[in-house]
Amino acid sequence: MPQKFIKNAVGRLIPTEINGQPQVPFLGIGKYKPESRKHAPRIYSCADYPLDGNKQAASLKEALIKAGLKDGMTISSHHHFRDGDLVMVQVFDIAHELGIKDLRWFPSASFSCHAPLVKYLEDGTIHHIEGSMNGPLGKFTSEGKMKGTAILRSHGGRYQAIQDGEVQIDIAIIVAGAADSFGNANGVHGESTSGSLGFALADSQYADKVIVVTDNLIPFPCVPWQIQGNYVDYTVLVDKVGIPEKIVSGTTQITKSPDRLFLAELTAKFCDAAGLIKDGFSFQTGAGGTSLSVSTYFADIMRARGIKARYARGGSNKYMVQMLEEGLVDYILDGQTFDLEGVRSMRDNAHHVATSPFTSYNYHSKGNFSGITDIVILGATEVDLDFNANVVTHSDGLLLHGIGGWQNCLFGKTVILPLPLFRNRMPVVVDQVTTICGPGELIDVIVTERGIAINPLRQDLIDAVKNAGLPLKTIKELKDEAEKICGVPDKPVFDDQIIAAIKWVDGTVIDVVRKVKG
Amino acid sequence: MPQKFIKNAVGRLIPTEINGQPQVPFLGIGKYKPESRKHAPRIYSCADYPLDGNKQAASLKEALIKAGLKDGMTISSHHHFRDGDLVMVQVFDIAHELGIKDLRWFPSASFSCHAPLVKYLEDGTIHHIEGSMNGPLGKFTSEGKMKGTAILRSHGGRYQAIQDGEVQIDIAIIVAGAADSFGNANGVHGESTSGSLGFALADSQYADKVIVVTDNLIPFPCVPWQIQGNYVDYTVLVDKVGIPEKIVSGTTQITKSPDRLFLAELTAKFCDAAGLIKDGFSFQTGAGGTSLSVSTYFADIMRARGIKARYARGGSNKYMVQMLEEGLVDYILDGQTFDLEGVRSMRDNAHHVATSPFTSYNYHSKGNFSGITDIVILGATEVDLDFNANVVTHSDGLLLHGIGGWQNCLFGKTVILPLPLFRNRMPVVVDQVTTICGPGELIDVIVTERGIAINPLRQDLIDAVKNAGLPLKTIKELKDEAEKICGVPDKPVFDDQIIAAIKWVDGTVIDVVRKVKG
Repeated sequence: MPQKFIKNAVGRLIPTEINGQPQVPFLGIGKYKPESRKHAPRIYSCADYPLDGNKQAASLKEALIKAGLKDGMTISSHHHFRDGDLVMVQVFDIAHELGIKDLRWFPSASFSCHAPLVKYLEDGTIHHIEGSMNGPLGKFTSEGKMKGTAILRSHGGRYQAIQDGEVQIDIAIIVAGAADSFGNANGVHGESTSGSLGFALADSQYADKVIVVTDNLIPFPCVPWQIQGNYVDYTVLVDKVGIPEKIVSGTTQITKSPDRLFLAELTAKFCDAAGLIKDGFSFQTGAGGTSLSVSTYFADIMRARGIKARYARGGSNKYMVQMLEEGLVDYILDGQTFDLEGVRSMRDNAHHVATSPFTSYNYHSKGNFSGITDIVILGATEVDLDFNANVVTHSDGLLLHGIGGWQNCLFGKTVILPLPLFRNRMPVVVDQVTTICGPGELIDVIVTERGIAINPLRQDLIDAVKNAGLPLKTIKELKDEAEKICGVPDKPVFDDQIIAAIKWVDGTVIDVVRKVKG
Repeated sequence: MPQKFIKNAVGRLIPTEINGQPQVPFLGIGKYKPESRKHAPRIYSCADYPLDGNKQAASLKEALIKAGLKDGMTISSHHHFRDGDLVMVQVFDIAHELGIKDLRWFPSASFSCHAPLVKYLEDGTIHHIEGSMNGPLGKFTSEGKMKGTAILRSHGGRYQAIQDGEVQIDIAIIVAGAADSFGNANGVHGESTSGSLGFALADSQYADKVIVVTDNLIPFPCVPWQIQGNYVDYTVLVDKVGIPEKIVSGTTQITKSPDRLFLAELTAKFCDAAGLIKDGFSFQTGAGGTSLSVSTYFADIMRARGIKARYARGGSNKYMVQMLEEGLVDYILDGQTFDLEGVRSMRDNAHHVATSPFTSYNYHSKGNFSGITDIVILGATEVDLDFNANVVTHSDGLLLHGIGGWQNCLFGKTVILPLPLFRNRMPVVVDQVTTICGPGELIDVIVTERGIAINPLRQDLIDAVKNAGLPLKTIKELKDEAEKICGVPDKPVFDDQIIAAIKWVDGTVIDVVRKVKG
């Protein structure tokens, strides 16, 4: 049966079905409101669990067998260890050893350390991945080699999909630096710390079976219980769950490049000129060296003016922690801990609060934190003349990044993308982005080293900064300038095959990614 | 249609229907396992909530109208302010003013301060109450005056009933010492503190509409968010929500009576003789002056022996806080804050952890904390020859108390009831309890001032203490001794009318209470 397509609200053709499941095309922001109910997990009974609370299984393999691992199941995981995860490859090694096929892996993100899973995608142990695929698994997918179609969701969209029953998890794997045998767990104590465990919250609440894996089993109670043992079926003690040092990656360190620092400084100047930096304001800086650097310029401005921010949202890192400890921010609301200083602070400072995609980002909820935040600094691989932006594919068409919290953060009051005008002689401002991840109406400002373009929808911002001596340009002027320097780039050439769908925060499909030709 | 009855597993006749809803009779401990799914709330959308997070309504009345208050709805509330609640009478005043009828009030407990609601039970504004009724509302109910039948649940049973969809809440009222306009709320900051807000957790998660009422609206974020604003529809600022001093009540203060202190000391001696007080042990002392006093004797033993407890469960109070601060316990796991020292400690000490009926007590979950706890000290109004116990009715048949966490705590490893052998010349040990709230097989030891009876099911305990010089007796001997002193008491005389049902922790009906005659 040939695929049917519907054009969505941003003009992209969306198949009506992906992996055999019907899809709703993106209808516009806030337009899709499902008239249904949240996923209802089974009612469990304490009578079926050890009365003394000890749920320890002898090994990961035993826990997986007890959890009923079988063909076609959905296995979820979370990415707090980022490239330092030591557990998920083991999980699929065991599945392979047991002859299990056609699993759906549903991680919150995958990294280079998961490259060994390519062989299981090839031999059919894993049917397809739904989740961010940074690096090798993304490339594998872009080459059209995965059996099913990838589905990428934002952090909030992942919570929404689980909550709404779009993805029903059979077995959730939760990896923790500390846990008790009942299953209470956190990422702030022990040798293998990763900070918050917020990305695993939905998994714990809604999965049929939940396995907590730790290398640091402590007597009940494990406090704080970022994951509550009341949701957990089995606990497993292993030698080592992860390498904390590897949670620090390229995207989580402040930039040292003078060009990028210039960009960060210009962004801070813009915010200041626009009157956004004032006592009690709030800001979020996403992953990526440039956006992380912006906060250090904010700190300079706050110090000079004797003001402080009510909260900073992160991705926490040592710079943000310094700001908290210096008294420049009242609270860090932390979705993901990006270095060990962040872990320490979350452990010891009650004003460094672990958040989850539920509190921060879930769009199918009675509000979330995104729209409350004054300034949001994000990255992008491309942005186009309508301010639409792309964060998942490169200009060569390869799917190499996840969405992270990026889509969710677009609901912030002022959303700014500091971007180099070109990368490797490929313009970042283009006619039309390869993949639309966020609609332009939510993106307010593009800051480049050669000028700042403000979305015409934000006349208030244009008025506020018009006399500030900033290099204001139109987005068209930025594109022309980039092309004058780099030439008009070749478009990537795609095959017909759809290799990935990009979900919007409400579960609708905003775009698809096709196989790269040749 | 005449009522039909089924005899349940403890021999009580249970109607097949109460308030028009079918009922499952108690089948025995751990026997009832519903093959169904949890209640699934509607899927909400952020598009229907203010993007800037400000959900403030102008008044409680406006919030109730916006929430769609209408005839027949279920209105829930929580009892952290105990007798100091200033909000719920206002809620029903507004309902009455608006001409609303037949509401079901679903509090976690009610107190004397709610006596003004009798007029709304009489005029039909409130149809019936499901929840503990301490004092005047209990008496009103026992006299057969309430239009519907009361349903009493334990704290864990209340969570279970909400989670499982047995009780669907239309509007939840959550009263907090601090909140932000988004609805994040806690009971530890501000002038009107009440400690944890754990009893309102299920209400926030599962109610259709949630209103947070505070007299202390602070800028976002209100941290800790014991209640998460993502579940909240409206926030309301009022002059004063409650009187913190009144959370201290008769049942939450240590006894000064020499008889009761003797009982508490004997209980502690028993625990020690049985080898239960050892390094890393855990204990829970329920409300009631005697059981609270036991912990101070535990403290003496721990000090003398240089050991400490891993955790104490409470009802926290100043004595427990002293033990935490002295280093005698590693953690307080606190379900309900019983005095202002408890509030202070919960606010300032990360080892004083707010728990909820979900973590502690919910029986329809993957385990809970109850069975992990070594020693559980509870009260009772009556206990019988089969060790069955009653906590809701007095020997005169009047329904005057709630169940609290009592039923849930019965799953502790060793459950001890220190009880005076008689009260007001009424024996506490009787042939058959007036109302069975807990099956005898879960109750291990009865400690009275005239002897200790160990449940024959606990041969291990009998063996452990047989040479300890303790006044061991059979339960029959205790009953005979009581009757020798007080005479055989008259049984209360009941009418046929069932005025209340007592639920077991799994939602089945363990007993009913009938109208007192005359």
